[in-house]
Amino acid sequence: MGDEVILLNFWLSLYGMRVWIALEEKGIKYENRQENISNKSQLLLQMNPVHKKIPVLFHNSRHICDSLIAVEYIDEVWNDQSPLLPSDPYQRSQARFWSNYVDTKIYEIAVRFWNTKGQEKEAAREEFLECMKLLEEQLVDEPYFGGKNFGFVDVALVSLFSYFYTFTSIYGNLINEERFPKIIAWANRCIQKECVFKCFPEELKVKEHVSQKRKDSNSE
Amino acid sequence: MGDEVILLNFWLSLYGMRVWIALEEKGIKYENRQENISNKSQLLLQMNPVHKKIPVLFHNSRHICDSLIAVEYIDEVWNDQSPLLPSDPYQRSQARFWSNYVDTKIYEIAVRFWNTKGQEKEAAREEFLECMKLLEEQLVDEPYFGGKNFGFVDVALVSLFSYFYTFTSIYGNLINEERFPKIIAWANRCIQKECVFKCFPEELKVKEHVSQKRKDSNSE
Repeated sequence: MGDEVILLNFWLSLYGMRVWIALEEKGIKYENRQENISNKSQLLLQMNPVHKKIPVLFHNSRHICDSLIAVEYIDEVWNDQSPLLPSDPYQRSQARFWSNYVDTKIYEIAVRFWNTKGQEKEAAREEFLECMKLLEEQLVDEPYFGGKNFGFVDVALVSLFSYFYTFTSIYGNLINEERFPKIIAWANRCIQKECVFKCFPEELKVKEHVSQKRKDSNSE
Repeated sequence: MGDEVILLNFWLSLYGMRVWIALEEKGIKYENRQENISNKSQLLLQMNPVHKKIPVLFHNSRHICDSLIAVEYIDEVWNDQSPLLPSDPYQRSQARFWSNYVDTKIYEIAVRFWNTKGQEKEAAREEFLECMKLLEEQLVDEPYFGGKNFGFVDVALVSLFSYFYTFTSIYGNLINEERFPKIIAWANRCIQKECVFKCFPEELKVKEHVSQKRKDSNSE
């Protein structure tokens, strides 16, 4: 009997998308089970009692929470195909450093930018651009953050770009080719990969969902 | 020629202590170089331009930033002695989950508790106790978070206990034997280990430093 792999996911989740992309990149057979995040299933609450959040990855009787931890688990278990983390310990530490940077800086600032107004929003905007500049510098002349192959940092960052057109339509073209030529080329390269393309939600649906969220929060 | 290992550290840093403890536990020869954190060295700023913080671990010509990433690097390079992460991918994912929990929840709440007053402080206090309860439950009947042997989660959490008596003297006995019998027994077990004992600062010096900090912040 083969492995049973189930991903508790939500189609718009930037975190869920990471695990999904890793499963696709590795060519693993899995079930992508959609959660209703405004009415979470008992299963989700039982499997992630600490954070009560998707994604949760089931593998046979085991379950793994936290997106980057699940991606690393996938990479370790299915280690014979499309390695995401490099084998050298130093290169691994650098991949962990930049994925952690995406999680603790880029995401934190993006959320702050989203949730604030006026001066605070402007400060978050500037900070976000500074951070993206630092990432731009990391690409040097390689096609991916991991070097020649699509890897761990690419998985950590790329899902953010599934909101690209929606954010651009609301906030203007923050991440443009003039400011970030390497990031833009990198994002286009990633999106052309089947494992990414397949997991990205339709742009119109993202825009619709985000517009509704903004309406709801303005009327609260 | 042997390996050149240098730790850019600050004797009171809970993050620096983690890397220091890992080096000691592995029996690695290293230089523990103290940084003046109010006047950071050019070397530190060059080696950690992103966060500009200690700890930074040098290993030959390589440098690794972020405490848990450095601990994992140490574990991978010196993998033949005192393994910190388990070899099974699932157990590894669990160790990463709980270390991440210590970093993102326990530390975040502890800082919030420290920096706030009144109702906010009270809320942080309650949240901190809830989180510690969850950690208490993880110990089950094993001596360490990693099971029978001192491991990654122990390294991530134990440095917090170097401030134990100072915090107790200021805030009362939050983490006491009645509430957290397993955590207290675990902390005592860890502190008796030479690798931990050696890296813990003297209690009186911690108290003196913290009292001075509190005075400074009250007079600002």
